[in-house]
Amino acid sequence: MLVPVMKKPLTKSNTILIKGGVVLTINPSEDIFPAGYVLIEDDTIKSIGTITEAPPDGTVDKVIDARDGLIMPGLINTHTHAAMACLRGLADDLPLETWLNDYIFPVEAHYVNPEFVYQGTRLAGIEMIRSGTTCFADGYFFEAEAARAVSQLGLRAILGQGILDFPTPDVPNPDFNLKNGKNYLERFPASPLIAPTLFCHSAYACKPETLQEARKVCNDHGIPLLIHLAETEAEIMKMMSRYGVSPVKHLLTLGVLDGETIAAHCLWISPEELFVLKAKKVRVAHCPESNMKLASGVAPVPDFLKFGIPVGLGTDGCASNNNLDLLSEMDTAAKIHKLARKDPSLMDAKTVVKMATIGGAEVLGLYDKIGSLELRKKADIIILDWKQPHLTPVYNYYSHLVYSASGHDVRTVMVDGTVIMHNQQILTVNEKEVISEVEKIGEEIKKGRLNNLR
Amino acid sequence: MLVPVMKKPLTKSNTILIKGGVVLTINPSEDIFPAGYVLIEDDTIKSIGTITEAPPDGTVDKVIDARDGLIMPGLINTHTHAAMACLRGLADDLPLETWLNDYIFPVEAHYVNPEFVYQGTRLAGIEMIRSGTTCFADGYFFEAEAARAVSQLGLRAILGQGILDFPTPDVPNPDFNLKNGKNYLERFPASPLIAPTLFCHSAYACKPETLQEARKVCNDHGIPLLIHLAETEAEIMKMMSRYGVSPVKHLLTLGVLDGETIAAHCLWISPEELFVLKAKKVRVAHCPESNMKLASGVAPVPDFLKFGIPVGLGTDGCASNNNLDLLSEMDTAAKIHKLARKDPSLMDAKTVVKMATIGGAEVLGLYDKIGSLELRKKADIIILDWKQPHLTPVYNYYSHLVYSASGHDVRTVMVDGTVIMHNQQILTVNEKEVISEVEKIGEEIKKGRLNNLR
Repeated sequence: MLVPVMKKPLTKSNTILIKGGVVLTINPSEDIFPAGYVLIEDDTIKSIGTITEAPPDGTVDKVIDARDGLIMPGLINTHTHAAMACLRGLADDLPLETWLNDYIFPVEAHYVNPEFVYQGTRLAGIEMIRSGTTCFADGYFFEAEAARAVSQLGLRAILGQGILDFPTPDVPNPDFNLKNGKNYLERFPASPLIAPTLFCHSAYACKPETLQEARKVCNDHGIPLLIHLAETEAEIMKMMSRYGVSPVKHLLTLGVLDGETIAAHCLWISPEELFVLKAKKVRVAHCPESNMKLASGVAPVPDFLKFGIPVGLGTDGCASNNNLDLLSEMDTAAKIHKLARKDPSLMDAKTVVKMATIGGAEVLGLYDKIGSLELRKKADIIILDWKQPHLTPVYNYYSHLVYSASGHDVRTVMVDGTVIMHNQQILTVNEKEVISEVEKIGEEIKKGRLNNLR
Repeated sequence: MLVPVMKKPLTKSNTILIKGGVVLTINPSEDIFPAGYVLIEDDTIKSIGTITEAPPDGTVDKVIDARDGLIMPGLINTHTHAAMACLRGLADDLPLETWLNDYIFPVEAHYVNPEFVYQGTRLAGIEMIRSGTTCFADGYFFEAEAARAVSQLGLRAILGQGILDFPTPDVPNPDFNLKNGKNYLERFPASPLIAPTLFCHSAYACKPETLQEARKVCNDHGIPLLIHLAETEAEIMKMMSRYGVSPVKHLLTLGVLDGETIAAHCLWISPEELFVLKAKKVRVAHCPESNMKLASGVAPVPDFLKFGIPVGLGTDGCASNNNLDLLSEMDTAAKIHKLARKDPSLMDAKTVVKMATIGGAEVLGLYDKIGSLELRKKADIIILDWKQPHLTPVYNYYSHLVYSASGHDVRTVMVDGTVIMHNQQILTVNEKEVISEVEKIGEEIKKGRLNNLR
């Protein structure tokens, strides 16, 4: 499909009025305005309500007609590796070890460089915008390049520089992994939308001292530490045989949970460890599609919710999903726990919509800023086309979002008061150019796979 | 989104050349032409190959440019209740009994009438066309009205008149359920695309004599019997307490499996019963999303495949999915078995694509006609837009279809040589009118729910 691309983003209007659609606020009282409006001033939501109370068109700089639309907070992806979009579909349906050791790691070692991360993150960003994600947490290599991409895209993000205790594409000698991480944090350009942090790969891929030092650095900077935690049964076995304890207890003992932690996956959590996560205020990124595809298991999310442990949704990277569509992830999140616990009333649609919005905001530490449409919150807003065959008739907005809609239904996306997609046209980067650049990277990898690797 | 609707379908050209895209044949040798063509004459595939061997444009009546597209056989939905699109999202996240007894059954009793089935099937048909389904098997009430809708839509289908031994919207006195079914079969207008049959709801909702008589009628007409089979553990328990045997053994003993049978779900199948299904040549409609949403369990599909039992994919009805997107169903089908059996190599992408195409054709008894792009097969063809951010880069076509694509990527749909959707515009029915008619039905149901039912 040809998409005309504007050379510049729309300039930020002083006041924008979105009106006419259903407004799903996800505020604490769960207000819904079947025909509503949202008034935005600069980067902030100024007022919200039923359309009869909207200010006259003439009093605002710009009006967005959202008739037949559903207006809601932008979705929040709490865990991904955006640049891995370049590896989408490279290797699937393989045992985890084969997948990692024979495909992902060797390809990453050969091909991941600043350009790969920049272009891959741009592609992933386009896909996220198209499917309604306005904010995400990322962890990968050369993360300053991810920041360059995200800044162009106009998305909100927390970008974690990867820290591993083995040679990585950006830090061939792991002795320097934390030095590299600190440099990344110190040189990070100030931005209202993007915050840098560290992403320790896992309790098994980082040494105890590395984990402790990374925790200290994060605490010094007042930022959350990102980490994969208890993703597979094999991880538990590895940790038990190496340290005699589970990964959660390992991190607890090392003091690595003493500070803000965003832990991805958290599948193999014992009942006792639920108390640890709760006590240490660990926030969980739940990635059900990746967990299914890699046959890792099912996270005890209903227990997390019972314990009041914050849970957001994540897509994980494109090598293990293989897309970044949070609306489709919502469908899986609603269904996987019903199946696992033989209870169709678990994880109802509203709970899942909240998980993908306000829940994600809480996980990323941005509860006061985003995740719902409320006065004084930042204007991160998406509009879905709600007049479509597969969304007809409408009995329940939440149900349609979770079970019937997909990312393709998103028409317009605003981040921090700036429209970055309108009528499915990306306004901030040249989509065709990005596709073409990532196709080139893909061609190189295909050639390489045929010649050198395997 | 405004979609201009043409008043008439495109007339069937004598010869149509589709060219320029990737052609995924799904033929026995799994041929793929990275830049290929398909030549259609009337309703039939006349030739197929690489673009350099395509006939010159001037020699055909119509050329469809499929550059940047992926050309493949239309998808086949082996189990749905199309008209239930009218009930999409009416009641979710409820225990099965509450869902059925407090919502679905009472609403059906009050509101299901010929108009409901006609409009609901039209809406479902539009959604199926939009998401690449060209053929489906249906079971519901007033099924002659479904046939009227399908005939307008231009889809291929097997339409089963529902048979239950309790009062239904179309047969208030169940004594007449088979008489009604026979009338339906006898009065069915001859059609090259639509075949009528009977749909016995289940071994627990039909009496033994009803099942036996329906089997006889189907055998007399040479048509497959549709039935729900071993969907839930509760069904097994009910059958054990009522008849002392499982539903499979019940049907076996009654002789109901002696003939063509298309059995939906088949979750609670013992190892011994795999031999029964195999010996009786039962064909299975696998509906993983519905099974997850209703917490029914996981069908032993890897075992079916090992036994050579034909398996196709189905969406089930919109009240238990809640969409008719087979591409999204493929994603779930690939992932659910990996999770259930802790093996990420199970149900690889190619297996799943075949299940949604040629596998479905085999299940519906249409293996010689559809399901793959091969000489002399009917021209049921879909074209996906393959140049999109979420489908970039391309390492593996099957993987992208299963894990990254969705129904929204389908651009053009041909059934029996006739284009029924082009560039996402439905050419056979007025989409806006259908949406509006089903919205009216939805409004009535909402009013009724507030007033009478609950």
